[in-house]
Amino acid sequence: MRMTMSPQFVRPEIAAMDGYVPGEQPQAGKFIKLNTNENPYPPPPGIRGAIDEVLQRGLQKYPDPMANAFRMRAAQIHELPSKDWVLCGNGSDDILTICTRAFVGHGESLRLPYPSYILYRSLAQIQGARWEEVRFNADWSLPAAFGEPAESLKLAFLPNPNSPTGTMISREAILELADRLPCPLLVDEAYVDFADYSCIDLPKKNEKILVSRTLSKSYGLAGLRFGYLVAQPQVIEQLVKVKDSYNCDSLSIAAATAAIDDQVWLATNRDKIVATRKHLTEGLEKLGFQVIPSQANFVWCTHPEKPAKPLYEALKAEHVLVRYMNYPNWSDGLRISVGTDDQISACLSLLSNMV
Amino acid sequence: MRMTMSPQFVRPEIAAMDGYVPGEQPQAGKFIKLNTNENPYPPPPGIRGAIDEVLQRGLQKYPDPMANAFRMRAAQIHELPSKDWVLCGNGSDDILTICTRAFVGHGESLRLPYPSYILYRSLAQIQGARWEEVRFNADWSLPAAFGEPAESLKLAFLPNPNSPTGTMISREAILELADRLPCPLLVDEAYVDFADYSCIDLPKKNEKILVSRTLSKSYGLAGLRFGYLVAQPQVIEQLVKVKDSYNCDSLSIAAATAAIDDQVWLATNRDKIVATRKHLTEGLEKLGFQVIPSQANFVWCTHPEKPAKPLYEALKAEHVLVRYMNYPNWSDGLRISVGTDDQISACLSLLSNMV
Repeated sequence: MRMTMSPQFVRPEIAAMDGYVPGEQPQAGKFIKLNTNENPYPPPPGIRGAIDEVLQRGLQKYPDPMANAFRMRAAQIHELPSKDWVLCGNGSDDILTICTRAFVGHGESLRLPYPSYILYRSLAQIQGARWEEVRFNADWSLPAAFGEPAESLKLAFLPNPNSPTGTMISREAILELADRLPCPLLVDEAYVDFADYSCIDLPKKNEKILVSRTLSKSYGLAGLRFGYLVAQPQVIEQLVKVKDSYNCDSLSIAAATAAIDDQVWLATNRDKIVATRKHLTEGLEKLGFQVIPSQANFVWCTHPEKPAKPLYEALKAEHVLVRYMNYPNWSDGLRISVGTDDQISACLSLLSNMV
Repeated sequence: MRMTMSPQFVRPEIAAMDGYVPGEQPQAGKFIKLNTNENPYPPPPGIRGAIDEVLQRGLQKYPDPMANAFRMRAAQIHELPSKDWVLCGNGSDDILTICTRAFVGHGESLRLPYPSYILYRSLAQIQGARWEEVRFNADWSLPAAFGEPAESLKLAFLPNPNSPTGTMISREAILELADRLPCPLLVDEAYVDFADYSCIDLPKKNEKILVSRTLSKSYGLAGLRFGYLVAQPQVIEQLVKVKDSYNCDSLSIAAATAAIDDQVWLATNRDKIVATRKHLTEGLEKLGFQVIPSQANFVWCTHPEKPAKPLYEALKAEHVLVRYMNYPNWSDGLRISVGTDDQISACLSLLSNMV
């Protein structure tokens, strides 16, 4: 058995990279899990019946490659002209991967704001592309540089609300950015159901605007892996060539379709999360934390006296998982997901003994 | 609303390609479906309980990013030293995509036999890579050229059994190819459970040998999307950087683990398929077809007098779907999946009125 090192076989870009590390997903032990922005409540009840129906029909056949049942329902809900404006993915990470591969070639570049979702950078690295980070202004708007044309610029990612800050860019600013950019602007709306407004209709105004969504957060379906993109049909048509033929499975297509069908559930769940976010924000502020006002299902906080990493570790020792993140040249801090009221009370109570 | 054409935004390689077209997956109408090599029988019964258990636990949390439950069980079944020899994917297409992205850079090349699985070429195109087809010998062995080193050669795909022919390369030949090749050799064993032997243990002998498997065919789980790769741990470690963080969902991880746990079901199902394959092969031969002896759950056939495409169309009109395929400079013909005995009898009976 020869166990020589194999990075010789992988592309140099892959050998050189560390790889994106997702938040901890403990498979054993009892944790209050406030580290990966999951919904603390179970998903819409209708998904159970949808899954049963697929199991009755059987899993031996391939799924619909385009997941048209979901596309049709999503087009209705978002008031799009047709299903051809929707592309389904195995989680919105799949959508982000497809777009990176479709638009950005080796040595070309991808733009993203800073601080934001670390995965964008990993996607550029895997693609052998460069990435260009544009720092947010102090008020969490974006400087004009974000819309500046550049020759090799092929894609811009804009999470809105942003992670880890929970802040948002206005619809007007996004339209203006898209007008100036020479490339598609992917507005990543993973957290938008917890926000005051969305850009889901903007692809109708500019073919350069693409909007991605996920069912992982607001629909409580992180375990299912389902996301989608809204864009003009001629854009979707190109992206289809890049996706795996059967990127979504039969169970998730059926469950996701049932989930978005229940907009009443979504509104109720959203209201609960937004109320608890207020509870969390105010509780942290009372303990002396600086908290960025968030439109997502998490808040970013720092403490003027207490370093963040020991707080993360102390909470983890008490079986409360939050996300410690360190953004060089900006800040480190804690990103705390909005759990149930009880979970947040427990977290705040532990923190009150630590600061 | 500006509806200009957008191929200007996608990479030229993507704009230029047609895109892989999977076999027809009719979502309505009653078809005897013998076109995409699905298993005609329902999957192992244990998956139902496994899915119920996940639904009880809830889908709101992210899945285990590495699907370790499956990896551990697969390592036991395949007598691998540890779970670190296994990488799970969203179908084996995901595995093939991950490997192409990890090993083959822009402008580099990928080798595949001809005729074989069309998707390999699409994967090269998406990656902006070149592909080099090496034609099978008349006896379905591979010429020495398949193992010939070449400077920019970064990956070789070898489906074994091959599609659309159902033929196999020997274990000895594969070991020899891997020794000569300057790059990884991915042995795609999508159909191997219907064959006489496998190469699943060969990664232990040579780190350049990687073996992919799928649960779509032999486990009757095409609708679930689950595949995996067996390779040395230092290879897997690099590939993990390229996969989407949560590429497998909670339901499919649980169901796939329950499925491979049932090796008795697998053996019984395999025996049924192999017996029906004999029935299909002999029936076709009786009707004057030339049939390549197959080790997979499909057979490739041509008729000396009757062109294949009208036969495909006539069968489709009778609601029997088989796959018409045309390989330039080789042949066109019909690839017929092994269904139940009744389905195959129905197909043969229709054909007997057409030839």
